[in-house]
Amino acid sequence: MPHIALPNGLPGIRGLFAFRLETARPLSQLAQILLHDENTLSRGERELIATYVSSRNDCYFCQTAHGALAAANLGANAALVEQVKRDPATAPISEKLRALLAIAGKVQGSGKNVTSDDVAHARAHGATDREIHDTVLIAAAFCMYNRYVDGLATSAPRDDEDGFRQRAVGVVAHGYMKLIDDLEAAAQPAR
Amino acid sequence: MPHIALPNGLPGIRGLFAFRLETARPLSQLAQILLHDENTLSRGERELIATYVSSRNDCYFCQTAHGALAAANLGANAALVEQVKRDPATAPISEKLRALLAIAGKVQGSGKNVTSDDVAHARAHGATDREIHDTVLIAAAFCMYNRYVDGLATSAPRDDEDGFRQRAVGVVAHGYMKLIDDLEAAAQPAR
Repeated sequence: MPHIALPNGLPGIRGLFAFRLETARPLSQLAQILLHDENTLSRGERELIATYVSSRNDCYFCQTAHGALAAANLGANAALVEQVKRDPATAPISEKLRALLAIAGKVQGSGKNVTSDDVAHARAHGATDREIHDTVLIAAAFCMYNRYVDGLATSAPRDDEDGFRQRAVGVVAHGYMKLIDDLEAAAQPAR
Repeated sequence: MPHIALPNGLPGIRGLFAFRLETARPLSQLAQILLHDENTLSRGERELIATYVSSRNDCYFCQTAHGALAAANLGANAALVEQVKRDPATAPISEKLRALLAIAGKVQGSGKNVTSDDVAHARAHGATDREIHDTVLIAAAFCMYNRYVDGLATSAPRDDEDGFRQRAVGVVAHGYMKLIDDLEAAAQPAR
C-alpha cells in the first residue's frame, strides 16, 4: 500500500503525478527531452540506459515500464533488454553503448565512481561529449525516479506485461507529456 | 577537471546548465517548485533536507550551495546547518523536521528503505501527506543533482564561502529560474 493517499488507482509514478501535478510537469519534461526528443543516441539506446539503472536500483515499476519502451523502440526485442539488464558486458550491443552503460552503472552507485578512463573509453568508441552528458543525466535522473516511486511505496501490478506494452506504444507515439496534459485536463473544474 | 568540455568557467551544476540549456529548464523548475515556491514547509526546512541528502552523498558543490541557502533562510544560522549535517537526531529542530530528515536519509540509500513506521512517526508529529511527498521527492531529486554534478566531475571552488553566500542571497530574492533566464538570454544570437 502506498505511504500516502493517492487520488486514484494509477500505478507507479503515474499515481504520484496525479497527486502533485506541479512537479509532474518538469519531471515529465525531463524524461521527454532525455528519452524521446531528437538525439544522436537512439530512443532504444536511451531507454536501455534508463532500464539498466532502474534494474540496478531494483525498481520494478521503472524497469518494467522503460524495459517495455526499450523493447518497443528496438523492434520488439525484449530478449535484448533482458540481456542488457543481466550483463551489458556480454550483451550483443555496440561498443559505444556498452561503454555508456558502464558509465551509467557507475553513476547508479555514485557520481564519484565515474573515472577519466571510463569517459576516455566511451570517447574512443565514438561517444561525444553530449552523449556522455546525456548518459550521466539519464542515469542520475533514474536514481531520482526510482527513489520517488519506491520511497512512497507506490503499487505496480506484477502480472500486467500487456498493460506495460500497451502504454509503451502510447509513449512511443505521443511522448511523455500526453499523460500530464490528460491529468491536467481531468483536474480542471467542469465549465 | 570536468569530464566534458564545459562552455565557461561556471562551477558545479551551473556549468552543466550552460552546456545543455534544454535540460537546465525542467531541472531548475523542479528546484523552484520544491524549494522556493509556497509550501507548508519553510524554505529553510526544505533547503536543510536538500543539504542533508547532498552531505550524505558527499557532494561538495550541492551541500555548500544549498547549505548557504538553508542558512540564509534560517536567519544566517550556519551553525544549525552544520548540526543537521552532522546529526539530525540531536540538532535543535522540530520533531516533525527530524522525522522528515529521517525519511530523507532513508531515501538517500534507497526508496525501499522507507518504512510504514517512518511515515507514521512523521505523521504523528504533524507531517501531512503533501509534506511527506515533498520530502521524498526533494531527497530523490538531490540523489539526481548530486550524481549529475559529480558524475561529470564539475569543478567547485573550495575557498569561496563568500561566493556561495552571495549567490544564496540572489536565489532567496529571485528564485531558481533567473539563472536559466540569464543563460538563455546570453545564448541568443545578437540582433
